[in-house]
Amino acid sequence: MSTPPSAPREPANPAFVALGGGHGLAASLSALRLMTDRITAVVTVADDGGSSGRLREELGVLPPGDLRMALAALCDDSEWGRTWRDLLQHRFATDGPLDHHSVGNLLIVALWQLLGDTVGGLDLVGRLLGARGRVLPMAAVPLEIEADVRCDDGTLAVVRGQTHVAVTPYRIEQLRLHPADPPACPEAVSAVRDADWVVLGPGSWYSSVLPHLLVPELRAALHETPARIVVTLNLTPDDETQGMRAVDHLAVLRAHAPELPVHAVVADPGSVDDVGELADLCASTGTRLLVRQVRRGDQSAVHDPLRLAAALRDVVEGYLGDVGTPAGR
Amino acid sequence: MSTPPSAPREPANPAFVALGGGHGLAASLSALRLMTDRITAVVTVADDGGSSGRLREELGVLPPGDLRMALAALCDDSEWGRTWRDLLQHRFATDGPLDHHSVGNLLIVALWQLLGDTVGGLDLVGRLLGARGRVLPMAAVPLEIEADVRCDDGTLAVVRGQTHVAVTPYRIEQLRLHPADPPACPEAVSAVRDADWVVLGPGSWYSSVLPHLLVPELRAALHETPARIVVTLNLTPDDETQGMRAVDHLAVLRAHAPELPVHAVVADPGSVDDVGELADLCASTGTRLLVRQVRRGDQSAVHDPLRLAAALRDVVEGYLGDVGTPAGR
Repeated sequence: MSTPPSAPREPANPAFVALGGGHGLAASLSALRLMTDRITAVVTVADDGGSSGRLREELGVLPPGDLRMALAALCDDSEWGRTWRDLLQHRFATDGPLDHHSVGNLLIVALWQLLGDTVGGLDLVGRLLGARGRVLPMAAVPLEIEADVRCDDGTLAVVRGQTHVAVTPYRIEQLRLHPADPPACPEAVSAVRDADWVVLGPGSWYSSVLPHLLVPELRAALHETPARIVVTLNLTPDDETQGMRAVDHLAVLRAHAPELPVHAVVADPGSVDDVGELADLCASTGTRLLVRQVRRGDQSAVHDPLRLAAALRDVVEGYLGDVGTPAGR
Repeated sequence: MSTPPSAPREPANPAFVALGGGHGLAASLSALRLMTDRITAVVTVADDGGSSGRLREELGVLPPGDLRMALAALCDDSEWGRTWRDLLQHRFATDGPLDHHSVGNLLIVALWQLLGDTVGGLDLVGRLLGARGRVLPMAAVPLEIEADVRCDDGTLAVVRGQTHVAVTPYRIEQLRLHPADPPACPEAVSAVRDADWVVLGPGSWYSSVLPHLLVPELRAALHETPARIVVTLNLTPDDETQGMRAVDHLAVLRAHAPELPVHAVVADPGSVDDVGELADLCASTGTRLLVRQVRRGDQSAVHDPLRLAAALRDVVEGYLGDVGTPAGR
């Protein structure tokens, strides 16, 4: 005698919000687009280097680069979508003032000037690309990241700017934003509150992932949303996280947002040498740990969109029919 | 007893090629788009000033500005088309190196670099805009315009570069291109050969209109095409044509291309004080002269697209059923 299948408690096409910046967020989005078209990327806007840094300096705009990369990752899988994606990602290479400027960065800031509307401009680029989802900034104003670091001689020093924080050889003890209380992007806050799942990482832990937790309205939304939160750990340490193990990444997250529930952690087996300790930590906080190969088959330190999608699907399916898990609260 | 209407000998939706550059060509295209969607703009590529000049210098590309303006003039009349048109036409205004760069110029040159295909890049921008027609360069390489001018003291001098030729206060006696024998854009040559009508002007006579006649393959196509040729005269003289009357404009055209047939001339009554002489000249060459108000109702020196379209329609209708007029040959 067979039992009738019970109705899934999760929507068939769950709404995801992905938090991060740069290549890490693009990896996350490349996986999520294989699972759903209800994707909102909420992107760090603290970049102060390269083309974005120059545009921010010259035009006083949000740094567009990480927003551009997120849009590119969501482009329609058609000749049209891929061509405009490639154009957005194209960089000039000259001996003159345009050198290294990204065409997508120029296009996005021009749309902002033309429309006077940050979100409207990003949505229009999304329409151009046929993007599978939406890309939003985490804050409505350009941000500066500042870190207290512990130098080798034991003294504390302050490192300012995302580009400097990202490459500091010293242990970061505390992260701050300037302005300290930036206005969030209201659409990003709503997306977090309405999501089924929120994905943090992969990405530069201090300079791309954690800053979201320092924007008060976004932090409140992350605490209050009924969405479940999954953390995708990095495959290799960055400069800024040299010497940090998987458990340290989670500890830093907890230190910066003690009340943030973490329902699941996805880790690649080749990237955790502390898997027992990681499992204990997760068990102690009601967090499900999924150790899955999520890197490419060539063992390079790059997330494979298909494998990461499969792991995230496993996360979602693990919670099917399972309501109100109080992970980490 | 009524006679049955005879079948028109001209297609209902005639194919037009418009030759020129800058605002003059844009005015011509704004009129033609009201008459047909079979439009090919063939655009001067000798600009060496402003954003185009800087891009040409920094990137070694065709100057994109006049191509961009032509594309903008053909954009789809929808919110989408107008928004991307406005973006193409948007210019940065900064204290830094992006100042005065046109976004459309940057986009076009980036597409050229990405696709390695001048015409393909312009066609793609046309698709973005939903353009009513096609925009092509008159030559496959960037050109320099050079003019022999007669100075006030009677001596001859050489003026180099479109920006300098366009503002010379001296009478231009001869125009040359560098390189002297540039390769044409093959698609532009084919468009001229396949056209029903070719429109020259309005526009800066020496620096935007005449250069087409100095590209050998284009000149040959203009001589050999079965298309009829209509010249739209300017509303006011430019710096480079100060003191020149309507008949002088036609005489200069004839001097630079003696065998070019001119089937019709469109002139605004407020812009010709030599209308009798103009009529005599046209009669002597088998050219139909249409004197029509083609300027805006506020009497500003700007072509009104509706009035210019009506005048060009009169030209076309005047030739309906009238085959093989040997104007000016």
